Amino acid sequence: MEQLIAKIDRELTVELGEEGFQLVKPTAQKVEPVPLNVPADLARIIDHTLLKAEATYSEIERLCAEAKEYGFASVCVNPANISLAVRLLGESSVKVCTVIGFPLGATTYLVKAAETREAVASGAEEIDMVINIGALKSGFYNLVFQEIKAVVEAAGAQALTKVIIETGLLTTEEKIKACLLAQYAGADFVKTSTGFGKGGATVEDVALMRLVTGGRMGVKASGGIRDLATAVAMVKAGANRIGASAGVKIIQEFIAQGRLEG
Amino acid sequence: MEQLIAKIDRELTVELGEEGFQLVKPTAQKVEPVPLNVPADLARIIDHTLLKAEATYSEIERLCAEAKEYGFASVCVNPANISLAVRLLGESSVKVCTVIGFPLGATTYLVKAAETREAVASGAEEIDMVINIGALKSGFYNLVFQEIKAVVEAAGAQALTKVIIETGLLTTEEKIKACLLAQYAGADFVKTSTGFGKGGATVEDVALMRLVTGGRMGVKASGGIRDLATAVAMVKAGANRIGASAGVKIIQEFIAQGRLEG
Repeated sequence: MEQLIAKIDRELTVELGEEGFQLVKPTAQKVEPVPLNVPADLARIIDHTLLKAEATYSEIERLCAEAKEYGFASVCVNPANISLAVRLLGESSVKVCTVIGFPLGATTYLVKAAETREAVASGAEEIDMVINIGALKSGFYNLVFQEIKAVVEAAGAQALTKVIIETGLLTTEEKIKACLLAQYAGADFVKTSTGFGKGGATVEDVALMRLVTGGRMGVKASGGIRDLATAVAMVKAGANRIGASAGVKIIQEFIAQGRLEG
Repeated sequence: MEQLIAKIDRELTVELGEEGFQLVKPTAQKVEPVPLNVPADLARIIDHTLLKAEATYSEIERLCAEAKEYGFASVCVNPANISLAVRLLGESSVKVCTVIGFPLGATTYLVKAAETREAVASGAEEIDMVINIGALKSGFYNLVFQEIKAVVEAAGAQALTKVIIETGLLTTEEKIKACLLAQYAGADFVKTSTGFGKGGATVEDVALMRLVTGGRMGVKASGGIRDLATAVAMVKAGANRIGASAGVKIIQEFIAQGRLEG
């Protein structure tokens, strides 16, 4: 697998030319393994997520209250709910995460960048963008690189960027390419899934994404993570962030269990 | 039902105040029943649709070729594919339709408007926007009105606007409200479903939407329309536009059958 990754890396960098290496911001700091000794260790890497179209005002209120109570990393909400979440979270340490070009990834890079600028101006500190999957599959790697770079630039120093590659739709080679493009463009994380497409996070995909990005990027596992065992398996495979709508259930399982097995 | 509609109409217009009546553009022309004598009658009201995230360049090529061959009203593609479709369709009478805030409807009105402006500048002549469903369910009617109006204004005289209300997520009262808000804001059509959410077009919903909007707006049925019988049932219930990815199959069924039964 390492040989395949190195081969794809060489081919892609040739295809993208010099531009591939004008990184927008310094590569993320070396990612350290996540300890899972107490429930708070897990809570602080969970993006507490509510992205369904019909999410109401009161459901966002509840999401933010839960995030403060459990000490989640962030609440992950649609762009239309950023301002509300920012207001509800106030001075707490919980960040607001949002999604860009979500969930199909098929908006233009201009719109993805504009959406990111508005999100950051409204107080979002984490930006989870979906790549143009059809472009990746059509071999338009420069387009995918440019759109990630545009979002990373729009986020600037104010927000972390995570690149959703929608693993369930990709071949192994496409997954490797997507991770490399995200890395070339200076993004902070690669992320498995939207939760709205085919498939969700798998241990195999998380391990592959960790292998491709080494310790240079974060890996967020998301999509179908509904219990403690699955969340822990993702962390052991190399994830240092978990996206889930079942965060409260997962942490309550951890508390009930007291300590992790194995 | 007529009484319920009239009651909701009164309450909504009071809530929105005077602004509700500053229509952005003249109300659409009176909608006439669609004749279905020959296959071409049906083809010319079908939006030939390909919105999956992983749609490739060659799949868009095929979509456009089919639309020209069968004489569909439009191809309906994601924003990232507008320029390609415009180029491929050239001087043909097939229009390019695109989707805004799709499929969750949970982007901000600023982004929906920016997305619409870019789409129209790129050559899209039909704009299918998704409303903020959570806002409707939370009772923020002015927000939904304002976002539809912003998209209608951004589309201007160059493009037709269709408002996707995602019927599968709404109560009867919410469906009526959504149709009225679309009408107040000067949109041209109401449309049932994204095809990505819960449920698709039903005969009952299309009939309700036709009843609420009278002959003053178009009604587009979309989501789960995969055969001729379903398409015809939608037209008989009051739809004057059909969104479907199975357009070729539907027209071939019509050709094979020769004439419609009943």
